[in-house]
Amino acid sequence: MTIDDLTGKTGEWLRGEGAMSDVVLSSRIRLARNLADRPFLASASQTERTEIYRTLVDEITQTPTGADAMVVDVDDLDTVDRGILVERHLISHQHACGEGSRGVTISPDETQSLMINEEDHLRIQGLRSGLQLEAIWDDINAVDDAVSSRLAIAFDQDLGYLTACPTNVGTGIRVSVMLHLPGLKYTKEIERMARAARDMRLAVRGLFGEGTDAVGDFYQISNQTTLGKSESAIREAFSNRIIPKIVAYERQARETLIKKRTVKLDDRIWRAYGVLSNARRISGDETQSLLSPLRMGIHLGRFDRFGIAALNEMFLYSQPAHLQRLHGKSLEGQERAIARADYLRERIGAAT
Amino acid sequence: MTIDDLTGKTGEWLRGEGAMSDVVLSSRIRLARNLADRPFLASASQTERTEIYRTLVDEITQTPTGADAMVVDVDDLDTVDRGILVERHLISHQHACGEGSRGVTISPDETQSLMINEEDHLRIQGLRSGLQLEAIWDDINAVDDAVSSRLAIAFDQDLGYLTACPTNVGTGIRVSVMLHLPGLKYTKEIERMARAARDMRLAVRGLFGEGTDAVGDFYQISNQTTLGKSESAIREAFSNRIIPKIVAYERQARETLIKKRTVKLDDRIWRAYGVLSNARRISGDETQSLLSPLRMGIHLGRFDRFGIAALNEMFLYSQPAHLQRLHGKSLEGQERAIARADYLRERIGAAT
Repeated sequence: MTIDDLTGKTGEWLRGEGAMSDVVLSSRIRLARNLADRPFLASASQTERTEIYRTLVDEITQTPTGADAMVVDVDDLDTVDRGILVERHLISHQHACGEGSRGVTISPDETQSLMINEEDHLRIQGLRSGLQLEAIWDDINAVDDAVSSRLAIAFDQDLGYLTACPTNVGTGIRVSVMLHLPGLKYTKEIERMARAARDMRLAVRGLFGEGTDAVGDFYQISNQTTLGKSESAIREAFSNRIIPKIVAYERQARETLIKKRTVKLDDRIWRAYGVLSNARRISGDETQSLLSPLRMGIHLGRFDRFGIAALNEMFLYSQPAHLQRLHGKSLEGQERAIARADYLRERIGAAT
Repeated sequence: MTIDDLTGKTGEWLRGEGAMSDVVLSSRIRLARNLADRPFLASASQTERTEIYRTLVDEITQTPTGADAMVVDVDDLDTVDRGILVERHLISHQHACGEGSRGVTISPDETQSLMINEEDHLRIQGLRSGLQLEAIWDDINAVDDAVSSRLAIAFDQDLGYLTACPTNVGTGIRVSVMLHLPGLKYTKEIERMARAARDMRLAVRGLFGEGTDAVGDFYQISNQTTLGKSESAIREAFSNRIIPKIVAYERQARETLIKKRTVKLDDRIWRAYGVLSNARRISGDETQSLLSPLRMGIHLGRFDRFGIAALNEMFLYSQPAHLQRLHGKSLEGQERAIARADYLRERIGAAT
């Protein structure tokens, strides 16, 4: 399997399936792990770093799930291929931009990716569309067990798993759920929701995690601290309380829009379609901002020119790396805006 | 002939014909005349005003061109019908909103309209699409002669025609040309053009004359003073120098856009189309702003979903009074914005 094989499909996180998929785009759990007998990366030499990378690749590929995985040496990739992995949420932006020996193993269905030498020696990530934290947990817990059975993992009886950054010490777990919240945005309730989430010590971020804005009305909600809470307590809170509550608010906001601001809602949806299907140049941010009301419109049955699958494809392929892969060459600013508009018109034409 | 008959067609000023019609929407000449033996309107009693109105209607309808004209008692009209006459540029906004005995006679082809008891007792107006000042002059000069042969007109050997407002004293002529200048607007040269025009003592106004903004990139250029200049000198200056020069600048600006900002130009044109053909509510101003790049796009051969005739129809019927006439009932703000969007989608659907 190669990165070329990946780009022929939409990827797990945009499958549009799973519970509450009208609001929950995808769920993710990642575990931070470090080898017991090696230095943390901040104090590792290039040689040690390379050894850690080789050791982890060797061992992971001998685990049951690792055997089928695609092993990618991230340091070896060109900019476009790195971008493709980021855009598919298989590696972090930091991992793409980092330096030195590092890589990722990716399961064929893209539900599991194991980043090696990102901030920690190993980050085990499970990703599924919709709200599917238990299924993800089953996956990555098995991976964690398999890896732990082959390698000594840095663990302290009192503190738990030891990690490069203190905020990850403990279970080393981060649960993140990507939510599409145009209803709360348009009814101007989003800030209240974000404040409430922050009061609960949750992080609220944009589409690509830390430091990114909430483009396209996507908000990523994740736990901030891991020390002193069990994995199951965190998962349980997300699956049964936090996310269902936000989803309920979002659905209520959408109902309000339909009942009280029908024309304004439809106008926003259809204007977005008008621009997407006619623009001759368009930025990535504007594309995502316009796809947002269409996504909601499809779920509310108020837009029918194409469905979620086509929308998700446009969402993914309008991003810089996928767009350049589609065009088979590197494209600069203005060229890219033109290529994006061309792609959208063609894709919408084919879908309608 | 009734106002209902008018609304079945586009009207002279939007015919899209005449010289330089890619830039010149329409030309207009009006003559201000007052009866010699009656007081100016500012000092006339209601009885005198009514007598002036009756006298002028009686005499006008006995002239050769007046015989076929529709006589409209403006004071009798409802708001929508007054609006229709304003939107077709057959009467001024002031005339529609005025009070007391007043009216207009309109030739069947809408090239001539004679306002009675607007600011002056009589305003003879000739209107044609494109740059056609000589043809207009021939028309209204004949009307002026016919009226003058039946009625004594206020005239002073030294000053010329006497008018209610001193700026009209002399020939009492105002020449106005409506220009579509999106090229100069987009290349940011419009202010320079407007300054140059003002330096030549020309007035630069919006679509409906005095006090209106240049919505939809339309600019009305007209002479400010009439005293001491012959009618022919003013016409000659407009026909042979002023307007051809502005038209040349505008065409040059459009060429620059095509050559140097092709994608930006096409993007503007097609986004406008996307919004017009998909919006669920839209204001009159936004409609005109969006029709503007389409008008230019059609003339430059860069937009082909419909032609100038359909565009002019949309331009006219998206205005409040025509829109309400089309819907057969009065429509308030939000309703009107919805009706306008519905009309545009339907009209564009039929045209494409």
